Amino acid sequence: MLPKVWPAVLALGWICLAVGAAQGLMALFSLAVSDGMEEVFAGTAAITIVFGGACVLTTSGRHFELRFRDAALLTVVSWFVVPAFGGLPLLAAPANLTAVDAYFEFVSGMTTTGSTVMSGLDNLPPSILLWRSTGQWIGGIGIIGLAIVILPFLKVGGMQLFRLESSDRSDKGMPRTREIAAAVGRVYVILTVACFFAYWLLGMSAFDALNHAMTTLPTAGYSTHDSSFGYFNSPALEWAGVVFMALAGLPFLAYLQFARRGSLWDRVEPQIPTFLATMTITTVLLAVWLTINNQVDFPTALTKSAFNTVSVITTTGFASVDYLQWGPFVTVWFLALTFFGGCAGSTAGGPKVFRYQVMFRVIAQHIRKAIHPHAVVPLRYGTRTLSDEQVWSVGAFMFLYFAAFAVIAVLLACLGLDVATAISGAATSIGNVGPGIGSVIGPAGNFASLPDAAKLILAVAMIMGRLEILSILLLLMPSFYR
Amino acid sequence: MLPKVWPAVLALGWICLAVGAAQGLMALFSLAVSDGMEEVFAGTAAITIVFGGACVLTTSGRHFELRFRDAALLTVVSWFVVPAFGGLPLLAAPANLTAVDAYFEFVSGMTTTGSTVMSGLDNLPPSILLWRSTGQWIGGIGIIGLAIVILPFLKVGGMQLFRLESSDRSDKGMPRTREIAAAVGRVYVILTVACFFAYWLLGMSAFDALNHAMTTLPTAGYSTHDSSFGYFNSPALEWAGVVFMALAGLPFLAYLQFARRGSLWDRVEPQIPTFLATMTITTVLLAVWLTINNQVDFPTALTKSAFNTVSVITTTGFASVDYLQWGPFVTVWFLALTFFGGCAGSTAGGPKVFRYQVMFRVIAQHIRKAIHPHAVVPLRYGTRTLSDEQVWSVGAFMFLYFAAFAVIAVLLACLGLDVATAISGAATSIGNVGPGIGSVIGPAGNFASLPDAAKLILAVAMIMGRLEILSILLLLMPSFYR
Repeated sequence: MLPKVWPAVLALGWICLAVGAAQGLMALFSLAVSDGMEEVFAGTAAITIVFGGACVLTTSGRHFELRFRDAALLTVVSWFVVPAFGGLPLLAAPANLTAVDAYFEFVSGMTTTGSTVMSGLDNLPPSILLWRSTGQWIGGIGIIGLAIVILPFLKVGGMQLFRLESSDRSDKGMPRTREIAAAVGRVYVILTVACFFAYWLLGMSAFDALNHAMTTLPTAGYSTHDSSFGYFNSPALEWAGVVFMALAGLPFLAYLQFARRGSLWDRVEPQIPTFLATMTITTVLLAVWLTINNQVDFPTALTKSAFNTVSVITTTGFASVDYLQWGPFVTVWFLALTFFGGCAGSTAGGPKVFRYQVMFRVIAQHIRKAIHPHAVVPLRYGTRTLSDEQVWSVGAFMFLYFAAFAVIAVLLACLGLDVATAISGAATSIGNVGPGIGSVIGPAGNFASLPDAAKLILAVAMIMGRLEILSILLLLMPSFYR
Repeated sequence: MLPKVWPAVLALGWICLAVGAAQGLMALFSLAVSDGMEEVFAGTAAITIVFGGACVLTTSGRHFELRFRDAALLTVVSWFVVPAFGGLPLLAAPANLTAVDAYFEFVSGMTTTGSTVMSGLDNLPPSILLWRSTGQWIGGIGIIGLAIVILPFLKVGGMQLFRLESSDRSDKGMPRTREIAAAVGRVYVILTVACFFAYWLLGMSAFDALNHAMTTLPTAGYSTHDSSFGYFNSPALEWAGVVFMALAGLPFLAYLQFARRGSLWDRVEPQIPTFLATMTITTVLLAVWLTINNQVDFPTALTKSAFNTVSVITTTGFASVDYLQWGPFVTVWFLALTFFGGCAGSTAGGPKVFRYQVMFRVIAQHIRKAIHPHAVVPLRYGTRTLSDEQVWSVGAFMFLYFAAFAVIAVLLACLGLDVATAISGAATSIGNVGPGIGSVIGPAGNFASLPDAAKLILAVAMIMGRLEILSILLLLMPSFYR
């Protein structure tokens, strides 16, 4: 019953082959725009492909059915190892990155966090910028696969609520997991293309539109400019960003159902209306606050509020303005928004809307029982009855999330980071958001100046957040290996 | 089934009579030391006693059995109203307090939080200082009653684990609730007297020893000096403080069992060893850190670390030094300690040790089930099997605690408080600790400069924390009144 190592090796091999192929394409792009990085990409593509090929070959001839332990091991190993290969080209970029920087940057990319150690983005070779964006886009695919296939299988943090099997009952014609994954992949591509055209038509250069589309759909947030979306200074582009970030924060399976039945509201559970309502209410509240307290006219306040609020709630992490200039209230407000997150089954990080919904239902149930001890009311989420195990699972996740946040904040402070940086760094990394608060890692800042140890802790935190913590904790339990 | 108002009125009446009597005693004390406050105390005693008497008389002749809703209403009403009468003498003190200040100060006192808006303590009339300490000492009695009788009855946040009935099974000779409460009250008095003699013999004046003993046992933290325990500059006194704060953080019922059977470890559940271990480990870690990083010799570091760590973990809130001077790590460390708390059944606030233990058991159980799906292992806490309802109850509490913390922090920031003050103010008030971090409300600071609205929010937060949140939430549910 020990976890087998070779399914993890095989999966790692295939992923590396894909990443290597992408690096090969990047070499061709570099040749096409003659930015001088073609040899770098060709070289790293060769390394990555040789490693991936070796992994695949050593496991050849084996057939397997994926078991629980294998899936857990495979997932964790892949997310830690792949960014090392993805980061190789960044080492050769004219940005003076160390190995730790490059690893941090690519972990931040593939986990779709979007925290960056690179500055002077506007002057970097286009192929390097495109490679950062590509890393985020590939990471987004991985996360959707994780959310649809792996995490429900691992029963991590209540994700079993979103198992495909349970929807089979209500829809007998539903295709099998592999086909669903492929269909969701197509939705991801189609939305990315639509986003590209929207950005392009509204005024971005084709190159900027491509990069930002590739980092919007995975709710990731890398930009080609140091001032992020603020560079374009265009309300139209900001609203386009709001729409596509919100679309990316919705569960991708909902789009399949929409295509099939014309309704988003169906299998989709109560998370969608609550997610949309949360974004709307927080946007309007902040806009009103800004209009009253910061002498901003309401339309401008609404645009700035919508873009930056939706960016943080969906854990994208673009910024269209340094919102920390708006005073301590807005600072604490954005720190609090870091703890929201989008829908389960999307590319968004954070604790996610459905877990808050489950917790509020548990509390309401608890109070109801205190008042009417003999009433028996099953706990429901949408059309489903929540089992005790599912409720525990969500409760355990929420507790672990806050506990992990606290431990990471203390560790970062231990390395000498100031209070705002330590606390918001922990929050933004485990939530896969991107920017923190404070002058160092705020929306106008950069993670470059942090000590190496802090960068490594943050990288681990990003992967922990991405894998919903419990999947990593599994591997740390002695009983996992028994 | 509506909650009856008059049990709440009756309880409020009796409590006010007791508070009024205490104010009367304070008038005698003021006469004895001739500090000129005797008329103030006599006047406020008259007001409080008249109000209390009126409450008792209007409900006279009624007999009742306390029902669930009545108990909830009575508890919440008493904790909000009594401090208004307790704060009256402070209004007349030579400290320029507003009505909001006086209410804040006495809420902070009776909830045994210990945050203060008063400065220049060293020069205040002794009777005013003694009255502040008395408020904390009376609050401590109320909290023990709450923890032993009311909260388990309300099934708030897993406190039903500590119902007296369940211990009846293992100990048939156990006396009934009222006798137990009286016995626990005796323990409280005996420990206070012991603490007084310890402080006095180790060098405090009799007056200082009395005040500090009366604020140590309720883990409350008001001092008679602006520099708190730092004033005495005595390692011996600090270690005496450590011992009595730790004793006050233990469940008071455990002392009864100890007296009966010679063991603290019995009914007492696993919270005691974990509580002691937590204090020891965090103390040693911080002492080592201070020795290495702050060029403090180890004995001094150990004393300072032990006193301030135990003070924050037990939610007492004395300070023997401005530990925020020790850099960002120590700052974040103490902010994190604010979220611990002592044992259930003591006067300590915070989430408390047993809830963390239950959560960790749930998580371990959850992971075990993920790895071995068919294993059936009941969740145990000490000698008891945890029911699903108890686990939910603890999970709901933990979630609400952090949610309430976040909402309070955002509200405080909304009033213009800086980030450190808003966040740590929320944490220290809901945890009933006392000091926050930052230059405003840190251990060397004071809550006086905050706006009135912030003081009122903090006062509500202290009562919420004290009543374990859910009891207040109950009263906000429409179904409570149906």
